Amino acid sequence: MDKSIDIYLDENEMPDKWYNFMPFLPKELPAAKNHETGVCSDQSGLMQEIRPKELILQDHCKEKWIKIPDEVLEKLFQIGRPTPLRRAAALERYLGTPAHIYFKREDLLLTGSFKLSTAIPQLYYANNEGFKGVVSETGAGQWGMALALSSKFYGMECKVFMAKCSLEQKPYRKIYMDLLGAEVMPSPSSLTLVGRDILMENKDHTGTLGTAISDAVAYAKDNKGFAYLSGSNTTHVLIHQTLLGLETKKQMEKAGEKPDMLFACISGGSNLGGFMLPFIEERMNNEVLYIGAESEAAPRLTQGNYEYDYSDYKGYTPLVKSYTMGHSFIPDPVHAGGLRQHSGSPVAGLLRHEGLLDAKAYGEKDAFKAAKVFLETEGVLVAPETSHAVAAVIETALELKKKNKKKNLVMLCSGSGMLDLEGYKSVI
Amino acid sequence: MDKSIDIYLDENEMPDKWYNFMPFLPKELPAAKNHETGVCSDQSGLMQEIRPKELILQDHCKEKWIKIPDEVLEKLFQIGRPTPLRRAAALERYLGTPAHIYFKREDLLLTGSFKLSTAIPQLYYANNEGFKGVVSETGAGQWGMALALSSKFYGMECKVFMAKCSLEQKPYRKIYMDLLGAEVMPSPSSLTLVGRDILMENKDHTGTLGTAISDAVAYAKDNKGFAYLSGSNTTHVLIHQTLLGLETKKQMEKAGEKPDMLFACISGGSNLGGFMLPFIEERMNNEVLYIGAESEAAPRLTQGNYEYDYSDYKGYTPLVKSYTMGHSFIPDPVHAGGLRQHSGSPVAGLLRHEGLLDAKAYGEKDAFKAAKVFLETEGVLVAPETSHAVAAVIETALELKKKNKKKNLVMLCSGSGMLDLEGYKSVI
Repeated sequence: MDKSIDIYLDENEMPDKWYNFMPFLPKELPAAKNHETGVCSDQSGLMQEIRPKELILQDHCKEKWIKIPDEVLEKLFQIGRPTPLRRAAALERYLGTPAHIYFKREDLLLTGSFKLSTAIPQLYYANNEGFKGVVSETGAGQWGMALALSSKFYGMECKVFMAKCSLEQKPYRKIYMDLLGAEVMPSPSSLTLVGRDILMENKDHTGTLGTAISDAVAYAKDNKGFAYLSGSNTTHVLIHQTLLGLETKKQMEKAGEKPDMLFACISGGSNLGGFMLPFIEERMNNEVLYIGAESEAAPRLTQGNYEYDYSDYKGYTPLVKSYTMGHSFIPDPVHAGGLRQHSGSPVAGLLRHEGLLDAKAYGEKDAFKAAKVFLETEGVLVAPETSHAVAAVIETALELKKKNKKKNLVMLCSGSGMLDLEGYKSVI
Repeated sequence: MDKSIDIYLDENEMPDKWYNFMPFLPKELPAAKNHETGVCSDQSGLMQEIRPKELILQDHCKEKWIKIPDEVLEKLFQIGRPTPLRRAAALERYLGTPAHIYFKREDLLLTGSFKLSTAIPQLYYANNEGFKGVVSETGAGQWGMALALSSKFYGMECKVFMAKCSLEQKPYRKIYMDLLGAEVMPSPSSLTLVGRDILMENKDHTGTLGTAISDAVAYAKDNKGFAYLSGSNTTHVLIHQTLLGLETKKQMEKAGEKPDMLFACISGGSNLGGFMLPFIEERMNNEVLYIGAESEAAPRLTQGNYEYDYSDYKGYTPLVKSYTMGHSFIPDPVHAGGLRQHSGSPVAGLLRHEGLLDAKAYGEKDAFKAAKVFLETEGVLVAPETSHAVAAVIETALELKKKNKKKNLVMLCSGSGMLDLEGYKSVI
């Protein structure tokens, strides 16, 4: 009997430091630029004013390990860390593949996605630095939910701009945030100058992560005391999310197996980066491969250009170098709202440019079909974003079946799809 | 730092037998009766035809322990057993109570509630005995979801009658079942003779668990090859759910504490019974108290009569003795659809009648307010049903604060409220 389906870590095996992968990247990360001055702007100017300072320091930290404050560690236990790594034995049997498939269950965290692991430390720092509230963008609402709960934990106000089409597609995520006292506003928003500007150009704009970033940054700019936080893209977010990979590493050791291929969906790149970067030395030695699964609605890694661009629609953020579709690109309103972004993190861009990150793009229907197979076999309903990673895993497992080759495939299950059922219904 | 917030069991500590509490009840359970013959009917007649035989045998088993088949045990691991027991340290701090509060996290199971723990073995037996499909009732849809997933695991057809008002309140639960290929029908249903009969009397009937049982039994009667399964009330269901209490017992030993009071919400009584009955000896010795929290919309234990009644609206089931509001009682359409039942299990009735089970009834608004406090402190959004147990725990913890008395309160968190957000929105 296959008893050991879950690989747990004891609480004393939980990493108590974040891994700073920056010194181990194959090349130095192209610096952020200010569009006016052309010099690095994230340590000066607007971002310096509206971001907690500790997070900017972490972006530029030179140490390999960053200690997690005790209070943060305690809250990380409460949100459900460390999460189990599960062997997908039922899926393997269904596919008849010689591959071993593992998935990391971030869907079990309190808000149903991996986002809480960075929301908690960000709220901790914002609170410590005397901000009265936080403001941010969200695509599908996973980050927004994490932000709302963390804000409540730290007794802070919370404002969330959510891409308008996702807000309409996923009403339960808004209700959850409302219940926790967060204020959720559709983006583009008539509340900000930039939002009104976008709506003037196009009153039917569906909203994207890019417009929501513009709205959130503008809000922080105009409302003193609000910290602007990011749920992805930035280096400190990826650093916080390295717990995903650090835990997985220990769990694979416990299972007595070495990962051959790592899979994650990708948009900003924080679930992918956090999960994969602790294996950067193994990747450089070609002991493991990285596979990112993106949405055909925003196919940056497979069809975009590697160049400097804004992270937001209107050009409030510093210019960073990554793969981009252009900052005014409007993706189709697919249900994987978390993947509807024109660009992504400079780190993911660099990995891709250096040939370390393979990428596959999937259409919504194919991704959802894969998620349905996963539900029927493993019993886990994944988020629409995650369904893209599932599609890549299943495709690879079937190729390995043809070749009769055993490999260990490890996937990050970034979130639950329970609040995306409406989306599944409308597509499948 | 309070690290040990979760108490886990290793897989080899997972109970591999169900606990048959029947020989340990304070009195013999009043036998079920057939309304025509007046003799015990659950081993003969209609129920004998439509229920898997193994389940009826379990209802009448004399052994203390029933071995869990290996295949079932394997699936129980997959659904997420054993679940962690969590110390509600944040809630304790918020209330300022000297009480220690623990809760058993059944919300972490794959479908978000405790129901899978009996759905899996029931499908296993139904499949083994050659049925092609299963049919059942569901209130809020927790049992329906568990049934749909388990049916998919065993490759069987699945038909679910869901109380009409709950179906309208909780559309995501239906979509989940649809996605797994289950057929979900509102009750009262025009598909069955009995459903048409009820609709003829009252075309605006909101549906209850009682009408849904009538529909499901009628369907099984008229469609050969469909097993009629129950999600609560019957003895075999309570026996399967004893894993909840058996695990909790081991976990409290690990925590080095003895439970003083056990809390659960109650309708049919399977989460309460499964959780509390493994502590029956301690209860008889007055070492622990049992507290059941019911809905004011169906206040059987606090206002009903202890007498023989049907479990369904139309009198298809055998007559069993429990606390009842009368089988034609129609509870208000509260969002805790799982608590909208006129009667309950004979076992819970006996415990109550013998003075072993204390009961408290809560209105929806008070219960939801308690759930909100729980969400804001613990970060767990409980199901509307569970919110009643939370209300009882908070009330007790505050009484203990007044008396400055330390007790260990252990609550069953029977399910997640993520798919009930619409309900929370409309009440709070």
